[in-house]
Amino acid sequence: MIVSNTCKRALPAVLAAPLVLGLMSGEVRAEVTAETAYILNTFSFLVHGVLVMFMAAGFAMLESGLVRSKNTATICLKNIALYSIAGIMFYLVGYDLMYTGVDGGYIGTLSFLYNPGDAELALLGADEASAEQLKAVTDAGYSVSSDWFFQMVFVATAASVVSGTVAERIKVWPFLIFVVVLTAVIYPVQASWVWGGGWLNEMGFTDFAGSTLVHSVGGWCALTGAIILGARKGKFGPDGRVNPLPGANMPLATLGTFVLWFGWFGFNGGSQLALGSAADATAISIVYVNTNIAAAGGVVAAMILTQIPYKKIDLSMALNGALAGLVAITAGPDLQNHAVSMLIGAVGGVLVVIFVPLMDKLKIDDVVGAISVHLVAGIWGTLCVGIFGAGSVSTQLIGIVAIGAFVIVTSSILWYILKMTVGIRISEEDEAAGSDMAECGMEAYPEFGRGSQTF
Amino acid sequence: MIVSNTCKRALPAVLAAPLVLGLMSGEVRAEVTAETAYILNTFSFLVHGVLVMFMAAGFAMLESGLVRSKNTATICLKNIALYSIAGIMFYLVGYDLMYTGVDGGYIGTLSFLYNPGDAELALLGADEASAEQLKAVTDAGYSVSSDWFFQMVFVATAASVVSGTVAERIKVWPFLIFVVVLTAVIYPVQASWVWGGGWLNEMGFTDFAGSTLVHSVGGWCALTGAIILGARKGKFGPDGRVNPLPGANMPLATLGTFVLWFGWFGFNGGSQLALGSAADATAISIVYVNTNIAAAGGVVAAMILTQIPYKKIDLSMALNGALAGLVAITAGPDLQNHAVSMLIGAVGGVLVVIFVPLMDKLKIDDVVGAISVHLVAGIWGTLCVGIFGAGSVSTQLIGIVAIGAFVIVTSSILWYILKMTVGIRISEEDEAAGSDMAECGMEAYPEFGRGSQTF
Amino acid sequence: MIVSNTCKRALPAVLAAPLVLGLMSGEVRAEVTAETAYILNTFSFLVHGVLVMFMAAGFAMLESGLVRSKNTATICLKNIALYSIAGIMFYLVGYDLMYTGVDGGYIGTLSFLYNPGDAELALLGADEASAEQLKAVTDAGYSVSSDWFFQMVFVATAASVVSGTVAERIKVWPFLIFVVVLTAVIYPVQASWVWGGGWLNEMGFTDFAGSTLVHSVGGWCALTGAIILGARKGKFGPDGRVNPLPGANMPLATLGTFVLWFGWFGFNGGSQLALGSAADATAISIVYVNTNIAAAGGVVAAMILTQIPYKKIDLSMALNGALAGLVAITAGPDLQNHAVSMLIGAVGGVLVVIFVPLMDKLKIDDVVGAISVHLVAGIWGTLCVGIFGAGSVSTQLIGIVAIGAFVIVTSSILWYILKMTVGIRISEEDEAAGSDMAECGMEAYPEFGRGSQTF
Repeated sequence: MIVSNTCKRALPAVLAAPLVLGLMSGEVRAEVTAETAYILNTFSFLVHGVLVMFMAAGFAMLESGLVRSKNTATICLKNIALYSIAGIMFYLVGYDLMYTGVDGGYIGTLSFLYNPGDAELALLGADEASAEQLKAVTDAGYSVSSDWFFQMVFVATAASVVSGTVAERIKVWPFLIFVVVLTAVIYPVQASWVWGGGWLNEMGFTDFAGSTLVHSVGGWCALTGAIILGARKGKFGPDGRVNPLPGANMPLATLGTFVLWFGWFGFNGGSQLALGSAADATAISIVYVNTNIAAAGGVVAAMILTQIPYKKIDLSMALNGALAGLVAITAGPDLQNHAVSMLIGAVGGVLVVIFVPLMDKLKIDDVVGAISVHLVAGIWGTLCVGIFGAGSVSTQLIGIVAIGAFVIVTSSILWYILKMTVGIRISEEDEAAGSDMAECGMEAYPEFGRGSQTF
Repeated sequence: MIVSNTCKRALPAVLAAPLVLGLMSGEVRAEVTAETAYILNTFSFLVHGVLVMFMAAGFAMLESGLVRSKNTATICLKNIALYSIAGIMFYLVGYDLMYTGVDGGYIGTLSFLYNPGDAELALLGADEASAEQLKAVTDAGYSVSSDWFFQMVFVATAASVVSGTVAERIKVWPFLIFVVVLTAVIYPVQASWVWGGGWLNEMGFTDFAGSTLVHSVGGWCALTGAIILGARKGKFGPDGRVNPLPGANMPLATLGTFVLWFGWFGFNGGSQLALGSAADATAISIVYVNTNIAAAGGVVAAMILTQIPYKKIDLSMALNGALAGLVAITAGPDLQNHAVSMLIGAVGGVLVVIFVPLMDKLKIDDVVGAISVHLVAGIWGTLCVGIFGAGSVSTQLIGIVAIGAFVIVTSSILWYILKMTVGIRISEEDEAAGSDMAECGMEAYPEFGRGSQTF
Repeated sequence: MIVSNTCKRALPAVLAAPLVLGLMSGEVRAEVTAETAYILNTFSFLVHGVLVMFMAAGFAMLESGLVRSKNTATICLKNIALYSIAGIMFYLVGYDLMYTGVDGGYIGTLSFLYNPGDAELALLGADEASAEQLKAVTDAGYSVSSDWFFQMVFVATAASVVSGTVAERIKVWPFLIFVVVLTAVIYPVQASWVWGGGWLNEMGFTDFAGSTLVHSVGGWCALTGAIILGARKGKFGPDGRVNPLPGANMPLATLGTFVLWFGWFGFNGGSQLALGSAADATAISIVYVNTNIAAAGGVVAAMILTQIPYKKIDLSMALNGALAGLVAITAGPDLQNHAVSMLIGAVGGVLVVIFVPLMDKLKIDDVVGAISVHLVAGIWGTLCVGIFGAGSVSTQLIGIVAIGAFVIVTSSILWYILKMTVGIRISEEDEAAGSDMAECGMEAYPEFGRGSQTF
């Protein structure tokens, strides 16, 4: 059974019961005081949030490794820029839009410049805090700022998914404008439907840490972007041939995958949203185990599946297998059966091996395989909550379709507006010479190589 | 004096005393409730376990940097594959074999598919948990899943040690079969003798975080593998000359070392196995300081020792000096004298500078120096518990020899079976061209270089 | 208002009030016991300290990416060596000099071989600890060893700042001697003035996590070093032309920046020095948010500022913008207005874009831009505590000038002594061929490139 955690900002369970009562009765009962629980809940958000923050480095390295050297500086720039922009936009407008006043509906409140809560500032400002001041803070269960930080790094993750797919041919500034709208509006609105307590949450749709809300959302934006932008020159030959255009630096891609795996413990573990009770600590532990074993399942499945037909093991498939396993388990990492988790991850790995060449066949040029990893495995993982967990398959399907439709429509409109106005694609000459010289005025590896002209 | 922590799964000290009693008597006494201790113990396993997990990335980068570019994709693949396999095998069979029913003996119980404990599931499943349900969980001291996670990343570390030594000439699948047996059987059996409460633990053998149980075990497997596999073509000239075959990417090797150092705080700090009391928090703090200063001692000793004869400072020796210092302190990082810890680490650094060329002289081809770092410094560190700590040198020696003999025999048999059946070595042509094209069908750096043929 | 935290070793607020009293009175009041607070405070130092430790890897990667390939092995070596030396010197003499017996004065006590406190050892050694033994430890608020660890990684950070600026031309050993004196004497003496409770602390000078005490100190040493050492051959043409000498590996520089950003949450968050109360947890959460948004502001400001004149976005400016934003917020990350924090960071990014070319104009050769990032933005951030926070601008200025004067004088004397005795600069031939062959006897990338001779 999946113990669902549908609403991201639900108060932690620890607050429901009068926890310190037992102390008074003279019996030796295990318990946690409200202030200790508050500290632990807050610290969980911070520690796990820092791990998720580091996933920005993971995406940067994964994508740096999988693009050609002439486009590497640009992809580095886009990754640090999108992480920065995501944080600023979520501060300016996204957080309130996602969490304030949703009330079972379709959108939150438009307000600006989120800042620490009054009760928290009163506590910090008091020379000697009163019991009331303390209670006003601890009643919330955790520091609002720690929650803001944890949610912010999730927005950035959704944006990171997009950059890899559309690499090597998109202009930097239009891409960053896309990120502005994605992180300020598109992501917060659809996330409010579930984690903000909106209509999908009321319906019973469940997505523990964001297979759909984060990964598929990034994946849909990547898909619409790849179609509207078109393929890289030379990727698809006139005779239908698919040219591989291999990435320039596989150890960096491997590093990026390991960093993402590392950060994913924060992504899934922190999404328990509390650490203030034995139940929470236990639940997080189960989440860690499932997260790891699903990724491991994805790696092994992808390796076996590339070995059989090709007699070789494709490293990039093994890496994407890990990521697909991670994406797949993200909707329900609280599943209480590790064998099923391993299976969910393994199927994620299988899907990647199937969908990466399928995308090529459809002439959709996804530089890093992000659509197969984040969108396809994200859908699979979200369905698994219905198949193996406490959720309903049909409700999960409604959520997948609703969010998919919303993101396809809004992102397509946005890509088209950008295409029609500022343009989204670099010139053919710049693409041939590499976006690094055109966009950044520098080379990523000025001393290495047979020269970037060869590819 | 070393406060030994012989049995990995011993209940944390916090549970031995009636900790909340003081509260009843009206006096203001510092204390931690059982549930708070449970959360802190569990969180320590998770946070420290995540740090150890990241060591998989450290090994991948260290080895990627120290092999030649034509074998880099393969080493990346092996590292992500072995980490995945270790997790799966430890889940399928290893954990129970290591921890269940050892009772002073030589082996645990063979059972499959480890899953969360019934008490934990009952707590998570209850709408409102009873005091008994809570107590049933918190009495264990920590979540079993968090312990599983922490122990799993140790198994993976042992496997990581092997891959560097046998790089550049071993076939991928046979290597991975070796990892299957190592992580399912060889590692758990010998670890059960100490951390599972087996015969060596009863005898008083002490290994805080695994100088012997993890690092030397990996080192023995690396040694038998290197001998049975033979040296790389061109490493040892017909005239007895040793050709250096330098690594292709030293910044990655440096990064790998820093990542390992970073992760080692989890490795040693988490091996206190508890954070639920002031004594535990204090002990972990001392462990952190010793871990850092031993590594620092290893770096400085290795630098000075290479400067004197060669008038240059070998970067790879400095890196291996850090790792040797870390391995050496791992058996007793709870030593209460930091100067002694620095000395233990420094001697580790010295040993590496001596043993790396000695291995060459013995015509044992260790690509990354892992035998010197993990086996030699591991033996040294294990002896130090007897020399400087509370342990007995003779008991430590018995443990080193017993585990060494067991691993030498089992790993040799395994390597030989693999050699006789599927074969363990790539063809001479593939070795000359690089294993990347043969095993992975790709190049790690397709755009760089004077070409991998030159080496 | 900035809630200042002037003295690094001040007892955490949690100890000021009789925290468990409420329990006796029968009311349900949020609270944390002294032992739980001790554990949380200690664990905060350890977790945040580990993040700061990883900044050593960040600096190593940033600098590895920004130097030319022929000097890369040397910069890797210097980074692991300086981190090791910083730890050893702070153990041998620095910590006591910084924290013991300062008492409003100018320097602490000279004593050697810092070791764990007696009360802590007594607690660890006791079979069954008495309430008095426990109280003797928990009264300190945290484990002294955890504080040592946290402070040690700060010393190392100051030293890391220097190595990038003087890269590509300095001899390794003289540089390391400089690090010995910096970390044993220069850093601890000036830090004692503020965090050790010395005269600047008494005056009201405030530096939360070290914009001045850590970053500017490193920056001043880098500035005097760059001037006394002179520019790299070929950097400044005879006609006043500035040659760019681009870094060899921009993804590594990007990775380094992300790692530094990641570690900075430990740097600023841990500088709250406590986690044992709801107020502390809340304060740390605010620090995390400010740290992130200041860095984001720095990135975006630097990007816009390079786009306007050059029509391109310089990746290295974006990276340095992030770092400048981080340095700028470090003096006052407890500011309770995130918009102001974003502004502080953005101005930091602007300063970098102005000062990097200005340094070139002044013919000060700073290989990585560390003077602009750490010194200039550090001064700016320290002033901000007076401008936007509770501090006084004039007092902040006094601190900046006093510490600047002290470090300029002492570091200049030290650089001159080294120059006059052992020499600090490699030979012209070695500089042309690259310091890697001369100092390390190896190449960082032996298989790549058009050869290091071309640059």
